[in-house]
Amino acid sequence: MEMGSGIDYRLISTDDHIIEPPDVWEGRLEAKFQDRAPHVIEVDDMDYWVFEGKQIPNIGLSVMAGRPYEEYSPKPVRFSDMRKGCYDPRERLRDMDRDGVEISALFPTVTGMAGTLFGECEDKELALRCLQTYNDWLADTWCAADPKRFVGQMIVPIWDLDLAVEELQRGIGLGHRALSFPNAPESLGLPNIGDPHWDPLWDAVEEAGLPVSMHIASGSMRNSPLPLAVAAGTPAEVFVTVAPSSNFVSVAPLLWSGALVKHPKLRFLSVEGGIGWIGYLIQRADEVYVKHRHWTRSVLKEKPSFYFKRQLYANFLDDEVGLAIRHHIGVDNIMFEVDYPHSDTTFPNSQELVAQRFKDIPADETRKIVRSNAIEFFDLDVE
Amino acid sequence: MEMGSGIDYRLISTDDHIIEPPDVWEGRLEAKFQDRAPHVIEVDDMDYWVFEGKQIPNIGLSVMAGRPYEEYSPKPVRFSDMRKGCYDPRERLRDMDRDGVEISALFPTVTGMAGTLFGECEDKELALRCLQTYNDWLADTWCAADPKRFVGQMIVPIWDLDLAVEELQRGIGLGHRALSFPNAPESLGLPNIGDPHWDPLWDAVEEAGLPVSMHIASGSMRNSPLPLAVAAGTPAEVFVTVAPSSNFVSVAPLLWSGALVKHPKLRFLSVEGGIGWIGYLIQRADEVYVKHRHWTRSVLKEKPSFYFKRQLYANFLDDEVGLAIRHHIGVDNIMFEVDYPHSDTTFPNSQELVAQRFKDIPADETRKIVRSNAIEFFDLDVE
Ligand SMILES: [Mn+2]
Ligand SMILES: [Mn+2]
Ligand SMILES: [Mn+2]
Ligand SMILES: [Mn+2]
Repeated sequence: MEMGSGIDYRLISTDDHIIEPPDVWEGRLEAKFQDRAPHVIEVDDMDYWVFEGKQIPNIGLSVMAGRPYEEYSPKPVRFSDMRKGCYDPRERLRDMDRDGVEISALFPTVTGMAGTLFGECEDKELALRCLQTYNDWLADTWCAADPKRFVGQMIVPIWDLDLAVEELQRGIGLGHRALSFPNAPESLGLPNIGDPHWDPLWDAVEEAGLPVSMHIASGSMRNSPLPLAVAAGTPAEVFVTVAPSSNFVSVAPLLWSGALVKHPKLRFLSVEGGIGWIGYLIQRADEVYVKHRHWTRSVLKEKPSFYFKRQLYANFLDDEVGLAIRHHIGVDNIMFEVDYPHSDTTFPNSQELVAQRFKDIPADETRKIVRSNAIEFFDLDVE
Repeated sequence: MEMGSGIDYRLISTDDHIIEPPDVWEGRLEAKFQDRAPHVIEVDDMDYWVFEGKQIPNIGLSVMAGRPYEEYSPKPVRFSDMRKGCYDPRERLRDMDRDGVEISALFPTVTGMAGTLFGECEDKELALRCLQTYNDWLADTWCAADPKRFVGQMIVPIWDLDLAVEELQRGIGLGHRALSFPNAPESLGLPNIGDPHWDPLWDAVEEAGLPVSMHIASGSMRNSPLPLAVAAGTPAEVFVTVAPSSNFVSVAPLLWSGALVKHPKLRFLSVEGGIGWIGYLIQRADEVYVKHRHWTRSVLKEKPSFYFKRQLYANFLDDEVGLAIRHHIGVDNIMFEVDYPHSDTTFPNSQELVAQRFKDIPADETRKIVRSNAIEFFDLDVE
């Protein structure tokens, strides 16, 4: 059996980040909103985004691609001190070439990874226009730079489901291929991700055949039900350690809610959560189904693993334990990611890392995990 | 190589529960406290413990041993409707014989699994005397019934560290072999388990060579930082699914806090948390150490996995995924448990289950995991 290390194709990364350049909202809004749209100011030799009275810097740990670990720091970084691939699509493509990555699925930064910055804005007309403008800009700049290599993931106004469905349709028209949805909507004061509240959005998403990405920490960081509660009064490493697996705030409710039963074609990707804990979660859920479904009157017709296999996916950067138990998760349900330009990124060593981690894994499974599963998931037009 | 299924010895269970009979506190306290000690009353054909105005029933799911899953229910159960092994040590020994279990480590129920019922009591003199009485009663009844087969785990007054150290010494004198400490003291308004606040207790525990058990959900259920936050507005199955792995509220802070550096002989057991997620947690912690320790200025001198291997342990009931990655955790660091009489218990099928789950695992590893590791951990006087 041929093992995976003889990889003669490029990887697909299912999670990377755009650090928005200062001009995203420039000249794209009506006069009455233009001045209030997010814009960059300089204060004491630092760049800040300004929106609705908030001053938001780019955190160092979000732009560490290519730096040695000794330089890692949460301290804000100016645009001029960032690697250009952070904010420039052509430079990004060059970095992807360096890293052996053909295609990249993109998340925003300043808007919140699922657009939650705008959900907090009181003027909902302003919020909607700013959000739409991000989707426009994403299509016109990054995706236009190479429509085959950048997968645009749109944000929608989740505070109003009618508007959200409308923006979803509009975003599809712009060429976007996935929806970025907050992993923990309850942290935003909204119903849990499994709640029937979201049915109208899921109906539209399912109808469109679009997948949904749930990035870790894409809800509110302030009210996140998980990592911050664990981290209170503990060293910073605790938060960094538990942040990925905290995505069980999405996966467990989705498995049990009935949303996957009602929407059999809806597909969700747990993003940057890693996979080493997911085999356990599926196993535990099945055990709970066997032992507890009678008193809980579960709405599931099959074991949770059935719905996971059919509709849930998870990605990872470097996860030896997860690969060891890949058959407990499903080799069709896991995907590689690079997380450029964040501190945990595999850039510029993705090819080497994959060759090393997959050396004992059959070639067909390897190709699925680092490439083909993503092609199918995002419905990409490549081999 | 001989595989594990030829098991010709009895198992050791590192987690079982006493459902206290009504007479635990009867005739054991000074007159001024006797009436105020926990006692059982009957209301509308149900038994309730009464303490400081609280009325506490025995939850059905805690006494399901031997029942078919179809009968599982959280509804309160009377003593007369329970299997006698729940509250009677001689009946428990017979059930252990039926199940092929030689030795059992015991946790209390009505006191909270780490004695937290008394921490909430305003009269701290009453609280201390009631807590001490549980430790006395445990020694005089269950442990006395068979000192070789029951491992007494004591509770201590964690609201006052001087008293806690005193009670620890007293409990050791009574023959108890472990301390049951809340997995999430922050849920009780106390410092996190890794906080230097606990140093005086850890000094005494380390000096005594005693291990510490941290049972899932042994903090306050009301303020638990994890499962309840995840479960808000979700089906009951979500809570049941995530409750075990929520023990990362203990494991992650312990790994990073420096408590294990300062107390190199201190040993902690994550109880009923399962092990299938722990390989991932250790791997992630090591990754965080490599990438992030510079900016976090970690207090660790070695990778987190070094401290885990030396000082942390975890047990499980039925965890195929966990066994598949046992070498990522350490075969010396994992132990079997029965969880009698809770709903997830392996009773009365523990021998069969172990034979099945360990059939492809080498005999020496099997023996460690289902027996020898527990002998060493609790310093038991058997082979
Ligand atoms: Mn990411
Ligand atoms: Mn990231
Ligand atoms: Mn237990
Ligand atoms: Mn239990």
